[in-house]
Amino acid sequence: MKAYVYVSLKKSVLDPQGKTIQGALKKMGYADIGEVRQGKYFEITLGGDLQQEQASAEIERIAREVLTNPVIEEFRYRLEQPD
Amino acid sequence: MKAYVYVSLKKSVLDPQGKTIQGALKKMGYADIGEVRQGKYFEITLGGDLQQEQASAEIERIAREVLTNPVIEEFRYRLEQPD
Repeated sequence: MKAYVYVSLKKSVLDPQGKTIQGALKKMGYADIGEVRQGKYFEITLGGDLQQEQASAEIERIAREVLTNPVIEEFRYRLEQPD
Repeated sequence: MKAYVYVSLKKSVLDPQGKTIQGALKKMGYADIGEVRQGKYFEITLGGDLQQEQASAEIERIAREVLTNPVIEEFRYRLEQPD
């Protein structure tokens, strides 16, 4: 099973890196670009014999305790069964 | 319209940051964790009057030329219409 965890800055937190990219794109002539925000994502391979709920609980704990700084970041995740 | 661009290291490229997280999780007792790979993602807000195909072409160009280092990274993206 694979888990995808997406970590982004909270809406209320400034994202200078995103702002820089936005400015660069504007200067390059991309007029339709509005806000740009950057985040991280993690692709985690899980052992095959985990149940969906176990995997979900484990990934949520990892995301909250290890991958995210809860003061400024928020996360979402999704699980994907192998084909 | 919103575009989400996901940039990850090519499978053939080592990901030391992911390896470090993987090692840390193993030490913390998460036994079911296999490989961990880290990537970036970008949330881009687009002007409202863009057609789907225009937006798609523009985002693909931005992703290829600005957000990704084609030597070591690959990208995928998706567009999301506002609710």
